[in-house]
Amino acid sequence: MKNTFGNAISLTLFGESHGPQIGVVLDGLAPGMTVSKDRIREMLSLRRPSGQISTARVEADEFQIVSGVFEGKTTGTPLTILIPNTNTKSKDYSETRFLARPGHADYTAYQKYHGFEDYRGGGHFSGRLTAALVAAGGILMPALEQKGIRIGTHIKTLGGGSLIEDMAFSDEEEALLGQIEALAKSSFPVLDKTVEEKMKERILEAASDGDSVGGILETAAWGVPAGLGEPWFDTVEGALSHGLFAIPAVKGVEFGEAFQMVEARGSEYNDAFIGEGEKIRTRTNHNGGVNGGITNGMPIRFRTVIKPTPSIFKEQQTVDIRTGENKTLALKGRHDPAIIHRARIVVDSITAFVLADLLTMRYGTDFLAQ
Amino acid sequence: MKNTFGNAISLTLFGESHGPQIGVVLDGLAPGMTVSKDRIREMLSLRRPSGQISTARVEADEFQIVSGVFEGKTTGTPLTILIPNTNTKSKDYSETRFLARPGHADYTAYQKYHGFEDYRGGGHFSGRLTAALVAAGGILMPALEQKGIRIGTHIKTLGGGSLIEDMAFSDEEEALLGQIEALAKSSFPVLDKTVEEKMKERILEAASDGDSVGGILETAAWGVPAGLGEPWFDTVEGALSHGLFAIPAVKGVEFGEAFQMVEARGSEYNDAFIGEGEKIRTRTNHNGGVNGGITNGMPIRFRTVIKPTPSIFKEQQTVDIRTGENKTLALKGRHDPAIIHRARIVVDSITAFVLADLLTMRYGTDFLAQ
Amino acid sequence: MKNTFGNAISLTLFGESHGPQIGVVLDGLAPGMTVSKDRIREMLSLRRPSGQISTARVEADEFQIVSGVFEGKTTGTPLTILIPNTNTKSKDYSETRFLARPGHADYTAYQKYHGFEDYRGGGHFSGRLTAALVAAGGILMPALEQKGIRIGTHIKTLGGGSLIEDMAFSDEEEALLGQIEALAKSSFPVLDKTVEEKMKERILEAASDGDSVGGILETAAWGVPAGLGEPWFDTVEGALSHGLFAIPAVKGVEFGEAFQMVEARGSEYNDAFIGEGEKIRTRTNHNGGVNGGITNGMPIRFRTVIKPTPSIFKEQQTVDIRTGENKTLALKGRHDPAIIHRARIVVDSITAFVLADLLTMRYGTDFLAQ
Amino acid sequence: MKNTFGNAISLTLFGESHGPQIGVVLDGLAPGMTVSKDRIREMLSLRRPSGQISTARVEADEFQIVSGVFEGKTTGTPLTILIPNTNTKSKDYSETRFLARPGHADYTAYQKYHGFEDYRGGGHFSGRLTAALVAAGGILMPALEQKGIRIGTHIKTLGGGSLIEDMAFSDEEEALLGQIEALAKSSFPVLDKTVEEKMKERILEAASDGDSVGGILETAAWGVPAGLGEPWFDTVEGALSHGLFAIPAVKGVEFGEAFQMVEARGSEYNDAFIGEGEKIRTRTNHNGGVNGGITNGMPIRFRTVIKPTPSIFKEQQTVDIRTGENKTLALKGRHDPAIIHRARIVVDSITAFVLADLLTMRYGTDFLAQ
Repeated sequence: MKNTFGNAISLTLFGESHGPQIGVVLDGLAPGMTVSKDRIREMLSLRRPSGQISTARVEADEFQIVSGVFEGKTTGTPLTILIPNTNTKSKDYSETRFLARPGHADYTAYQKYHGFEDYRGGGHFSGRLTAALVAAGGILMPALEQKGIRIGTHIKTLGGGSLIEDMAFSDEEEALLGQIEALAKSSFPVLDKTVEEKMKERILEAASDGDSVGGILETAAWGVPAGLGEPWFDTVEGALSHGLFAIPAVKGVEFGEAFQMVEARGSEYNDAFIGEGEKIRTRTNHNGGVNGGITNGMPIRFRTVIKPTPSIFKEQQTVDIRTGENKTLALKGRHDPAIIHRARIVVDSITAFVLADLLTMRYGTDFLAQ
Repeated sequence: MKNTFGNAISLTLFGESHGPQIGVVLDGLAPGMTVSKDRIREMLSLRRPSGQISTARVEADEFQIVSGVFEGKTTGTPLTILIPNTNTKSKDYSETRFLARPGHADYTAYQKYHGFEDYRGGGHFSGRLTAALVAAGGILMPALEQKGIRIGTHIKTLGGGSLIEDMAFSDEEEALLGQIEALAKSSFPVLDKTVEEKMKERILEAASDGDSVGGILETAAWGVPAGLGEPWFDTVEGALSHGLFAIPAVKGVEFGEAFQMVEARGSEYNDAFIGEGEKIRTRTNHNGGVNGGITNGMPIRFRTVIKPTPSIFKEQQTVDIRTGENKTLALKGRHDPAIIHRARIVVDSITAFVLADLLTMRYGTDFLAQ
Repeated sequence: MKNTFGNAISLTLFGESHGPQIGVVLDGLAPGMTVSKDRIREMLSLRRPSGQISTARVEADEFQIVSGVFEGKTTGTPLTILIPNTNTKSKDYSETRFLARPGHADYTAYQKYHGFEDYRGGGHFSGRLTAALVAAGGILMPALEQKGIRIGTHIKTLGGGSLIEDMAFSDEEEALLGQIEALAKSSFPVLDKTVEEKMKERILEAASDGDSVGGILETAAWGVPAGLGEPWFDTVEGALSHGLFAIPAVKGVEFGEAFQMVEARGSEYNDAFIGEGEKIRTRTNHNGGVNGGITNGMPIRFRTVIKPTPSIFKEQQTVDIRTGENKTLALKGRHDPAIIHRARIVVDSITAFVLADLLTMRYGTDFLAQ
Repeated sequence: MKNTFGNAISLTLFGESHGPQIGVVLDGLAPGMTVSKDRIREMLSLRRPSGQISTARVEADEFQIVSGVFEGKTTGTPLTILIPNTNTKSKDYSETRFLARPGHADYTAYQKYHGFEDYRGGGHFSGRLTAALVAAGGILMPALEQKGIRIGTHIKTLGGGSLIEDMAFSDEEEALLGQIEALAKSSFPVLDKTVEEKMKERILEAASDGDSVGGILETAAWGVPAGLGEPWFDTVEGALSHGLFAIPAVKGVEFGEAFQMVEARGSEYNDAFIGEGEKIRTRTNHNGGVNGGITNGMPIRFRTVIKPTPSIFKEQQTVDIRTGENKTLALKGRHDPAIIHRARIVVDSITAFVLADLLTMRYGTDFLAQ
């Protein structure tokens, strides 16, 4: 299904970085969901570059909903959001048309599309398209919140040199909820505000070297009912990772504390069950809220590696993709020295989509508006 | 699509640990692929438990191909493989029917299926079903080899205490091919034979404590052409991770060296292109052979975390899933202190399936037998 | 998805006419549905040939459920039914291996599968596989009945010469229900028993000429709630016709009275709405219970053309599919002079599947067992 | 997948009759297909109402391609076409908001979407959306023609009283090609120009009575290679009918001459094979170019019933959909007394899509531009 994702709900993504518009079609939504343009705007603003730690290409992200909403509510038919591209400088790209930018999709696009691809600004591969994913998240997130589900993501680790000390979500459910709420208001999402400046300095340092940094995002979804997902293939982990790897910079996904706990034994890794009155929970949550591919009612927790932005100003070795001739390349234009803080709301949006899809599959097409 | 996976080729998995048979249906195969029962047997033997480091439940894995093969070749119509379960001891499970085993799917299955699930030996969630995945791999692997594609997986890291030192695939393509070929013959797949005994001792130590260990598998797919995969959603990473997370013990997937290289800057992480005559390659392969979701012709490389087997003999805290009453549980029966060496051929099989699917989508339904 | 069909519920069909077994995997079933082997047997018996009007190849249709059922109920995991082929006479086919039987798939299979197809008895194309569809129907039909939905099909028209006079379902809902119930018990399903002998004579006449007959089946689904289906593509008509055309002999499908009412004007064809207390219905049902692709709560009604069985004993002109050399062919073996009476339970089963799928999509995965 | 259709190629349809824009996303197209805006315009003009036999609502159908095309060629990434709605008179609908128009989807939409549907002009159910399908056809049709495939549809039968005499496609392949070419230029597509006036008079007669007419379209696809389609479910007939029934007025589909030949015996219905040198064809084509669900290389032929337009000016009985209260309704506004001549290019477009999808599945993603 290529650029369409989902089962009971589907999301179709289209557009190119320097085309007239990008957009998204959401199908299978419950009729009667409240649509808040302010919420969409708010979420888009968390993705928008700002300040020196981001690219100078700032898009207004004015969007238009052209179908699927009537009198402020979803109709249940396909909901389409269009976002015009306005601030494009295509000339930056035409000179280096055939010089593959390392770490980017220029070479693979050329192999796949035989030179017919729109190469300007990464074309269809551009992170620009994540604006449409976030707009879709702006439709779904409020519906999940109505169902008591909250999603939040923080920058757990910032790279670009010696690692900045880890922060972790709280194991206490109430405290976790507070953390998620606080993150929603912050454009640079960290659990401990004292490291924010340290991280921003690190990014600026890299920027001043013409270089870039990456890191690890950690996400929690709070209030997800037990019993979502399928044992084989359509596991919660499989569905989420499938969506998350669509985000251009994501190169790794772990649930709970997989890579970190590789030295553990089963007796440490297993999450013991405890009964608290009628409620069953696990004492620890090393499995990230998922057992056998299915939610267990604990917070879903996972981490995604955001690789350092491949667009750097340092001179790099590359080739002419037509001939294989060796060349050097030093990018010009406007680029982010880090996108991890902007990527977080994209991760939240993908997470919202996957959970909305799983809930709709299980509880039916009207559920999210009931 | 739940227990069905794939696009141009699809794989449907069915069965329960203690039911009469498990099986798999492969649809969309090219007509005329050579089917070697010996190869399937060989691959199944790499998954089969053996020695003290594995469970005492050994299944003969006699299989029967009941459709889709005629005169030794695939017909192009659905190919079905059945594997009978013979060595089942259901009584081991009935006593503890309602005591959720920590780290297992007992509790989530109960939430999802309301008690109608076949609980014996994990039922449909059992690792037993991976035998059918491996049988499917035995159909696809030779076809990929005909196309010059080789897949291999080794135990990169073994946990269960202080980590046993990492081994890594070679960056030299010829050397890598040699490593893959050597792994194919080994039932305990490590790149450096001197650590094999060390690892096995580690497993036996855990076993003698009634405990278990996990680790990290690293996989390489050699010879995959550039241009496979899609930019959004059906990325190579998304498709592979979707499949890999179906394997019961997998909790994390990274491509290239994502988690390991989190401290790197863009200038280190980007893989510079170099032309060697007509051939274009990258100097390093930190991105694991995938840029923008699409193969770049370098070896695909990824790592999967295999969590410590949740079945341990130590007493654990749990609940009665009907009532939430707190209980303790000490498993009896036959269990693996480690499954990482057995999981490797399952990872190989999933990888073979995903690559076969991507190739068929791109080059058409006859491609794999051409 | 080729041999897999459905969305919330899926059905995967496999096997060949002369292979060891045929079978079906149903996935996405609600956990807790009662499984009655007697009901499956009963439905299979309505498909089984009997008497002189059918082929002499009678299969016992002993089936085995190898997954997805535990203690008499569906588990919610894939349910697999296997049916062995026992009464096969492959020798009948080997002589004429390369002589394409007119009206059959021999030639098209050769074009598609390049000669690798299992040609014996039509291989994967054989009507034999409909036994597995009927077994699947035997799982779904009782669940629909629990929800107040009843499905029945009668032979509306028998061909093979001058048409035998039409019979039609009653427009009265109560009377229709009675008709459906009566049909369920009859192996030769006609609304008016006085034409049964006439029809059977017609079939025997054709048989004695070495020829065959077809006709039109009419199906009604009673008690289907309003609001199922989608406006574009996944219309009720689209979903049903997609399934129905899988039945080898089906060449036409109309909803309501489409072809018959082609001369009507809108004022005659439109079904006026009438309110009866709180209930809304239509006065007529020319649209077959579907408006805009979505059920309106009236009985769903459609007709399927069953073409004359292509297997006839008369000499026919054909070619050697390898060379195009002109040949003649007179079939031997065991063949049906009519399959319309046997096809009806296949139509019912497909209908049950599509409705179960639409209900599960709309009301969630537990609905059919609630 | 609801409003998304297709496998290797997919089509996602969105919009409402009185919303700002309707549109379509085509994904999976071969990179490098030539895009002709003139051809799209030409096809849209064949769908646009004109003269007294059509509605007075004429839309300019100005369209914009906002993604997937670069320098006049398809890029291979999602191609999105937007068509603004300009000539909308929503006031015509608000007065009768809750009076279900017989034969329309007002009542079923209310049942499905609980009143949240955009009711104006039929909303998402409106035939207006077929403009987007035709625009998609304008992308695909030239690519098929490059491959030697030609598609054409004529009005075989016009209803609205005594039937106007049937016309049929020629059985001669060369003559058929000529007919298809002639149809492409005609806005009222009939094989025999002498019946055109007779048909138009019939339509005007109905219009002057405030009534409407329907009929039967017959389609031929010439030059389709043998071997497309799948034996079960994804048969050519199943795929085409699934798409055709999405067209709002379609209520019946037959391949070849299914309903017409119901009286035939197998010996008449079977299409004998004949070899002409290396080429194999059938002498007759009663099966419509499809055997066992797979193309046989003969022209694909099918017929679709277009029901009389449900929008009529005569007073009709209906209900208030909120209460079931009986009411009468006489439509005002602008409506078509017949849409059969406009529907033909929609049928052609759906046919082009399904064939393009089948070809891409079989021959790979680059095929249509090779």
